[in-house]
Amino acid sequence: MIKVGIVGGTGYTGVELLRLLATHPQVELKVITSRADAGTPVSQMFPSLRGHLDLSFTHPDSAHLDKCDVVFFATPNGIAMQQTRELLAAGVRVIDLAADFRIQDVAVWEKWYGMSHACPDLIAGAVYGLPEINRAKIKEAQLVANPGCYPTAVQLALIPLLEAGLVETSNLIADAKSGVSGAGRKAEVGILFSEAGDNFKAYGVAGHRHLPEIRQGLARAAQHEVGLTFVPHLTPMIRGIHATMYARIKKDADWQALFEQRYANEPFVDVLPAGSHPETRSVRGSNKCRIAVHRPQGGDTLVLLSAIDNLVKGAAGQAVQNMNIMFGLPETTALNIVPLLP
Amino acid sequence: MIKVGIVGGTGYTGVELLRLLATHPQVELKVITSRADAGTPVSQMFPSLRGHLDLSFTHPDSAHLDKCDVVFFATPNGIAMQQTRELLAAGVRVIDLAADFRIQDVAVWEKWYGMSHACPDLIAGAVYGLPEINRAKIKEAQLVANPGCYPTAVQLALIPLLEAGLVETSNLIADAKSGVSGAGRKAEVGILFSEAGDNFKAYGVAGHRHLPEIRQGLARAAQHEVGLTFVPHLTPMIRGIHATMYARIKKDADWQALFEQRYANEPFVDVLPAGSHPETRSVRGSNKCRIAVHRPQGGDTLVLLSAIDNLVKGAAGQAVQNMNIMFGLPETTALNIVPLLP
Amino acid sequence: MIKVGIVGGTGYTGVELLRLLATHPQVELKVITSRADAGTPVSQMFPSLRGHLDLSFTHPDSAHLDKCDVVFFATPNGIAMQQTRELLAAGVRVIDLAADFRIQDVAVWEKWYGMSHACPDLIAGAVYGLPEINRAKIKEAQLVANPGCYPTAVQLALIPLLEAGLVETSNLIADAKSGVSGAGRKAEVGILFSEAGDNFKAYGVAGHRHLPEIRQGLARAAQHEVGLTFVPHLTPMIRGIHATMYARIKKDADWQALFEQRYANEPFVDVLPAGSHPETRSVRGSNKCRIAVHRPQGGDTLVLLSAIDNLVKGAAGQAVQNMNIMFGLPETTALNIVPLLP
Amino acid sequence: MIKVGIVGGTGYTGVELLRLLATHPQVELKVITSRADAGTPVSQMFPSLRGHLDLSFTHPDSAHLDKCDVVFFATPNGIAMQQTRELLAAGVRVIDLAADFRIQDVAVWEKWYGMSHACPDLIAGAVYGLPEINRAKIKEAQLVANPGCYPTAVQLALIPLLEAGLVETSNLIADAKSGVSGAGRKAEVGILFSEAGDNFKAYGVAGHRHLPEIRQGLARAAQHEVGLTFVPHLTPMIRGIHATMYARIKKDADWQALFEQRYANEPFVDVLPAGSHPETRSVRGSNKCRIAVHRPQGGDTLVLLSAIDNLVKGAAGQAVQNMNIMFGLPETTALNIVPLLP
Repeated sequence: MIKVGIVGGTGYTGVELLRLLATHPQVELKVITSRADAGTPVSQMFPSLRGHLDLSFTHPDSAHLDKCDVVFFATPNGIAMQQTRELLAAGVRVIDLAADFRIQDVAVWEKWYGMSHACPDLIAGAVYGLPEINRAKIKEAQLVANPGCYPTAVQLALIPLLEAGLVETSNLIADAKSGVSGAGRKAEVGILFSEAGDNFKAYGVAGHRHLPEIRQGLARAAQHEVGLTFVPHLTPMIRGIHATMYARIKKDADWQALFEQRYANEPFVDVLPAGSHPETRSVRGSNKCRIAVHRPQGGDTLVLLSAIDNLVKGAAGQAVQNMNIMFGLPETTALNIVPLLP
Repeated sequence: MIKVGIVGGTGYTGVELLRLLATHPQVELKVITSRADAGTPVSQMFPSLRGHLDLSFTHPDSAHLDKCDVVFFATPNGIAMQQTRELLAAGVRVIDLAADFRIQDVAVWEKWYGMSHACPDLIAGAVYGLPEINRAKIKEAQLVANPGCYPTAVQLALIPLLEAGLVETSNLIADAKSGVSGAGRKAEVGILFSEAGDNFKAYGVAGHRHLPEIRQGLARAAQHEVGLTFVPHLTPMIRGIHATMYARIKKDADWQALFEQRYANEPFVDVLPAGSHPETRSVRGSNKCRIAVHRPQGGDTLVLLSAIDNLVKGAAGQAVQNMNIMFGLPETTALNIVPLLP
Repeated sequence: MIKVGIVGGTGYTGVELLRLLATHPQVELKVITSRADAGTPVSQMFPSLRGHLDLSFTHPDSAHLDKCDVVFFATPNGIAMQQTRELLAAGVRVIDLAADFRIQDVAVWEKWYGMSHACPDLIAGAVYGLPEINRAKIKEAQLVANPGCYPTAVQLALIPLLEAGLVETSNLIADAKSGVSGAGRKAEVGILFSEAGDNFKAYGVAGHRHLPEIRQGLARAAQHEVGLTFVPHLTPMIRGIHATMYARIKKDADWQALFEQRYANEPFVDVLPAGSHPETRSVRGSNKCRIAVHRPQGGDTLVLLSAIDNLVKGAAGQAVQNMNIMFGLPETTALNIVPLLP
Repeated sequence: MIKVGIVGGTGYTGVELLRLLATHPQVELKVITSRADAGTPVSQMFPSLRGHLDLSFTHPDSAHLDKCDVVFFATPNGIAMQQTRELLAAGVRVIDLAADFRIQDVAVWEKWYGMSHACPDLIAGAVYGLPEINRAKIKEAQLVANPGCYPTAVQLALIPLLEAGLVETSNLIADAKSGVSGAGRKAEVGILFSEAGDNFKAYGVAGHRHLPEIRQGLARAAQHEVGLTFVPHLTPMIRGIHATMYARIKKDADWQALFEQRYANEPFVDVLPAGSHPETRSVRGSNKCRIAVHRPQGGDTLVLLSAIDNLVKGAAGQAVQNMNIMFGLPETTALNIVPLLP
């Protein structure tokens, strides 16, 4: 049994980790920390867990995380980097669901996240936890930087094109739409039901923190810098990200075959038949990413459609997938979930 | 392995059965019928099932349902009764998710459902599939009448009171609120997103088909006829039923203890701590019914709150629970689902 | 022109007042106060007002409210009572949209609202601003206590029965469902989109502050104390209250006629034809209350259905209606709004 | 008074026309036709209109539309073209809210709409009813082709750039998101609450009927053909369109000033301050289009954001605006509506 600790379990990625790990046959959930809610039974805060999880929040100071085999950080940005060095030193493997170790260029990270990095020397050793490009490294990783939600949806759709060098890379466009849970479980007016409901808007057009992460991933695939315009939007649903990407064709190809081959052996990437439109609900609650590729009217612009559940493949599910890989388990353990539809 | 057939798999209870059975370790899904969509892969109609179910709809005429161990009817009312006699004769056990065998009094059934019953002689032998009152009979049943969604939510909350004879039974009130999926997957204007969204209304106040079913169940528990006012409402959510019941106290009791004891051994009924308010999302996607009992201001009116997922405990999940009982499997097989929250 | 001031314009009742007053032909909006947002253009906080309102928030200390003809308080409970005496002394009429002057019994108010009343001597002179029962007094009032949202919906449906003495009054039941905007524009986790969306729950079953207000109003109509069980629920829509009331018949009557006659001359109460079910969207954005009366299966329980927009007839619209009455204007001025459907 | 007739009043654009015209001081609503619902009071189908409209649906055969001054067609595509010749001959002016007269090239129209045009000779004389480009012609028009919802949102945002010749026109991108009411009030499974709710998807990527209409309008502004990729999406809200446009800069300019000047005198186009993100709810129920222009990170791609209410500026409101222009009324008559927020 893998002894698991979770730091910060009161947000949506935390409760989603609990949902997934509660039925994981190889996991023993040892501790889940919360400074504010220490002593409170987890299932009191999240009644959905009643009967599935008999555990209370522990104060971080008495959590004994160093006795765990792996610790997940489901915390705001800037927390994991405070504790990672000590955990690694104790032989604990770390999966950070926040952004602390996602960007290899420290200066870029510090600019976009507005703080100094607490352990810049650990960044180079962190493995970006997107299994579809990094499976072998994840297997050996002590420290995994779990990708952001938008970056997962956008990269999985664009990477096959960039790896194959078939599209122009100076003017890629990613128009992404997220459900409101992507903004987290924070007491903020802008994400109230009466503000975000029956409403649609773009935000962060001037610059969103996921932009450098996506650009880094796309550059890795293209093996050179890329130009990207990324516009996130808030859409009145709870879960789900739908990303629509636009890329100009450089060389012609059998686009459907390209995607099908690239992801033929991936358990969690589903390339839909030609002409399809993935719906976010078709992945609700599951770790799947569904992708479709279109070339409207045979023109020179490709349109890629990509749908994930932001809390699963975009956060907690991908973290469990990474854990499965790290500990040599079948990758789909506890993740063979049929999406909830309707 | 239990050989399973499903008649009518294109509605919400059908796709929900598929979601649950797709991961059932003891089930072999042999056939799913649809007259209109014969030949279509199920996962084409419901992309959520891609990768989980490799089966196409079969025309009823070539379905060979008589080779199954059990057949579920996820059909409109009036279909199951046409085929049940033949299936039973072939030794196939039948679970009807519609209403054909729920009402023991044929005349009452024919009045509320507006048709003649095709096999009134089979009704007496049908077992009402509410495990919390009928577990032993379900185990032996050849024909199970799976309860309606409202009746499940209302009965589970009122039965402990009626069995104990502690409340007045002449003026019970059940004010129930359903998500829109309860109306089915039918092309009707009234349940369009733009009609049912951001809107709330009562319907069927003059009389709803679930009224006689609930009354029958309550009478069984009370061992005499009861008076019930039942008002259903449509609420702008996809899944979930919340029922609020009002009953006048006849004899005082420890209400919290009464409920906890009645359901102490029930895997799918969760009596919440005193003072709680069950939320529908706390059971989303799961087979749980969560119940709370209140006595506001110490007055003479009890308020019972009950929440289920109408497609699971209110339909497909309860049907699988019944199947598990009928075939001697652990009752929670394939139903140990952590609700999807948020 | 009526010179109008608004105290506390950053909540939902405040912005709704602005929406209504912006097109009121007899109103000159002089000042709107906000401590936190002084100096900010109102239309910057609420872009819906761009082009309709050219006004910035003023700090309360420099608001010169005493120069107004009428001041609306769209503030949390406990604010209006701090400033009312001074305003009345200056000859300013006051309409409080909060609860400070709704309850005549100070002890009851202090118990339910958990604070000492700042000016108990003013309460007796405050007029409860429900025009359908108090029109003449409102006309002369210096201080109007604008009714709560639930109390408006519940009282309008029950009052005709109580005035006529036709139902039992010891066990009235009001099962009410509110849209989320009823909880205000506050940064609280429980009303986030991802918490309140696709979810339904009861709350405050042990006791809600609107209970004594409703009880007071019903007692006034019945001319004796009444027994009431009141259960509010949160439903995933933005605006709207739907209340379902249950009352046992004492003497038979033509219920439809009773309601139609009681409200024959009311511009904002619409008694629907027999058999109807009012929808909240049928009053969205308007000051209407739509009511239907049912007697299911000819039994001894009446079911009353009542729908209002909680922010209009349940708050700001009723406040404008009261202002129109107080200043001798046609009652429907600025309120002749066709509901927004769909 | 303008005598108005409406053909096809049972859809969302029809009821929205009624909402707007019910309070129009210069309009006498003479007749509204419906083949299926002749004789039914309009307010029975749409209870929101109770008290505002005392009119029943009339069978088309007895509608005497030729006695009207203007007739609106709120019908499916292909109906208006059957009756327009006769009405024009009778001196009746016609505003078609459907697509029959929007495309000047008949062959293009017939290809995209899949039918033969009934009166191709009338197309040249039809005026495209986008007041912001065609006000003078609309004033004289006998036949107005009211623009589509997507085309309105996209054109208003791109036209200033194209008229000024400042962006590359070979690869424009319009990523548009519509509320579900845009799909009409039709009994179709795909727009049920339980299908379209809590879900997001693209549709019609291969080609949507609004593509040629938008391309025609952009070409008119650019004075040459343009290349456009247009991807519509369905978002779980009732009303609203949000369009996000991407254009590569050819010559630098003061983009904010460009837009502000272009629309300085337009009553219904609101250019937001630099850095803004228009929300669909900020125009809910109103005829406004709110636009923002961004140049992320000072790169070579402009991002335009545009929000309208698809049923108002995208349909019925624009039609009333056109009528006001045609009949010499102040353009904002009956359209000075404060958006409903929240």
